Amino acid sequence: MQDRQKQILIVGLGLIGGSLALALQGFENYLVVGGVRSQVTYDKAVERGVARRVTFDPAAELPGADVVILCQDPQGIMDFLRDNRDKFRPGSLVMDVCGIKTAIMEAAKCLPETVDFIGCHPMAGKEVSGIDNAEATLFRNTHFIITPGEHSTPEHLDLLRRMATHCQFRDVVPTTPQRHDEMIAYTSQLMHVIALSVCDSEELFSCMGFEGGSFRDCTRVAALDVPLWTQLFSLNAPALSHVVEQLEERLRAYRLAIQSGDRAELSAMLEHAAGRKKQRNFEQARGDDVHVAF
Amino acid sequence: MQDRQKQILIVGLGLIGGSLALALQGFENYLVVGGVRSQVTYDKAVERGVARRVTFDPAAELPGADVVILCQDPQGIMDFLRDNRDKFRPGSLVMDVCGIKTAIMEAAKCLPETVDFIGCHPMAGKEVSGIDNAEATLFRNTHFIITPGEHSTPEHLDLLRRMATHCQFRDVVPTTPQRHDEMIAYTSQLMHVIALSVCDSEELFSCMGFEGGSFRDCTRVAALDVPLWTQLFSLNAPALSHVVEQLEERLRAYRLAIQSGDRAELSAMLEHAAGRKKQRNFEQARGDDVHVAF
Repeated sequence: MQDRQKQILIVGLGLIGGSLALALQGFENYLVVGGVRSQVTYDKAVERGVARRVTFDPAAELPGADVVILCQDPQGIMDFLRDNRDKFRPGSLVMDVCGIKTAIMEAAKCLPETVDFIGCHPMAGKEVSGIDNAEATLFRNTHFIITPGEHSTPEHLDLLRRMATHCQFRDVVPTTPQRHDEMIAYTSQLMHVIALSVCDSEELFSCMGFEGGSFRDCTRVAALDVPLWTQLFSLNAPALSHVVEQLEERLRAYRLAIQSGDRAELSAMLEHAAGRKKQRNFEQARGDDVHVAF
Repeated sequence: MQDRQKQILIVGLGLIGGSLALALQGFENYLVVGGVRSQVTYDKAVERGVARRVTFDPAAELPGADVVILCQDPQGIMDFLRDNRDKFRPGSLVMDVCGIKTAIMEAAKCLPETVDFIGCHPMAGKEVSGIDNAEATLFRNTHFIITPGEHSTPEHLDLLRRMATHCQFRDVVPTTPQRHDEMIAYTSQLMHVIALSVCDSEELFSCMGFEGGSFRDCTRVAALDVPLWTQLFSLNAPALSHVVEQLEERLRAYRLAIQSGDRAELSAMLEHAAGRKKQRNFEQARGDDVHVAF
């Protein structure tokens, strides 16, 4: 008797979905199917051989999909879950790759109990989007954050870890949706708000020739996908507002110290923050770089 | 008749001075002499062959130096100029590499008219300092900003350009001290204040495992040389305070838009800033990347 061909369905072949499809090629005995919306993406996916098969109707593939990875934008993921909740294969593992988790985990509650939803957030990206920029090595050495559901099975968690290893993720970091969203507000969304705010300056164009590595690094992510990030910011408004306000307060404290002319006070502030950064670099180099509250 | 051996004296063999000494090896028929203060730096400079000769008494070398490059910290440069103003060789070119220019150009006014002082700021660096991290390729493809004096000669400007080319700088960007300090407040010092402020957060250690490239890039420069940056911030307090305050205001505007729940307004703000960044990337790629008001 021949085993049924196992399938991974990836819905959305943009930067992350396309990269996952490429990275998962050759994973055990799974075949990767890709779902797209536009003809342009379809043509590129077929030309690059991103998936074994590409379809405009991913919902029709759900009954045969052992693993589903939802790679649309947040609203697209929530809509897809709601519209297709009865079509998922019983016993299947469903994942997403969205940058916020509380709203997604809430939306996934519409799924029947026979379907195991595990929220996922690969901490990888680029400042450019779309299948053109997808690559199999995008996830190499990055963190793969997951928020398992209440009833996630050890078998599915193990399958997810094997997929993560195949994609060359550095580690799998389990956490809760709330903690994820608080942390991401600080480590990722705040960096994007900073980059945008710096680029709003009237000096952005006149300063050409005066920038070094720190300016390029800090502003890199400002060239973002506007509809996506409008959703991500809006769906995490309380946590994001909190960290932005904290940053405003700390910037103000540095400004007052600089304005005061009190070099001893300013030096003490720099010593404190620089010392923390050096300590963190040290811990990271030592490998103590995942403190997880699960 | 044999020509006298021309000499470049580099005072201070830290990250920048050490890298310049390495990069200037083989420059025309000049011999590089390095001045140091500590035995540790002396030993390392000799061991690595950073300069042809290393001395603890750079002031004694001034009468024979055709080019002097001052690579101490800002206060060290100003003190050296004041203490040795009558020892510089008549007709010599004196430069510095300090990250602020108004205070340095002011201090250089103590030099006799026979000495040509050109303020310089190589837009290169690392988050680590000292001769251990010096390398000949540090300046490759970076901007070399200069603030010539009122009486700087075409011959010296030409010599400086040849040295910059030898060090593989991308371009030489002339400007005024005031404009330099305003631009640097925005493109460099503000990036350091941001990185410090982000690292002051109580989440800095607990967020390990949740960070991606944007967090690493933005916080990289927080591990700074505290005495040096205390001087740099203090000597540019008005311009720096101004850009920090502007950033506080822009962050506040993003926070209010995020809190308001008005996605159309938030989207418009993101569209504006992201569009500016994309436009800037485009101009930079096209090579229109130096707009200089001299």
